[in-house]
Amino acid sequence: MPIETADLVGTAAGLCSMASFTPQLLKIWREKDASSLSLRMYIVTVTGFSLWIVYGVLETSFPVVLTNSVCLVLSGAILALKWRYSRREAEGP
Amino acid sequence: MPIETADLVGTAAGLCSMASFTPQLLKIWREKDASSLSLRMYIVTVTGFSLWIVYGVLETSFPVVLTNSVCLVLSGAILALKWRYSRREAEGP
Repeated sequence: MPIETADLVGTAAGLCSMASFTPQLLKIWREKDASSLSLRMYIVTVTGFSLWIVYGVLETSFPVVLTNSVCLVLSGAILALKWRYSRREAEGP
Repeated sequence: MPIETADLVGTAAGLCSMASFTPQLLKIWREKDASSLSLRMYIVTVTGFSLWIVYGVLETSFPVVLTNSVCLVLSGAILALKWRYSRREAEGP
């Protein structure tokens, strides 16, 4: 099976999707600040990736399961840090 | 063609992906603050959605083009606001 342009573009797109959360995670970790991040966005995002994994399992699509698992772990870590720093802000220093 | 569980789960997952950026966009718009958002995350995210649209066009997949176009517009708006408020912070009040 020859590698097609669409496969290359799709792979590059998937790598961007997976890589995108890393700079955000590092920034929160470094600055201990997630005040302007939306908690709701990350709740919906984590739900979305969980559903994509279920979809990938039902369709037995390994690439869908793999890429969305990576995205789920990274966005889940951002959600956990957002949660942690939001509680700290609410409680005060 | 009967509607399968996988189709329903996939549709729900797609709706979550599209909806996720809305609360973040509204939060930035309301608070005029995007300081803890990662500029790099949104540059990579916008690049990713652009590539997914190209992939959808090459594969003639209307759902891929549609969902990623919605995501591109919303994440592009967040990127624009982040850019705007970052410049304002750098310039001072």
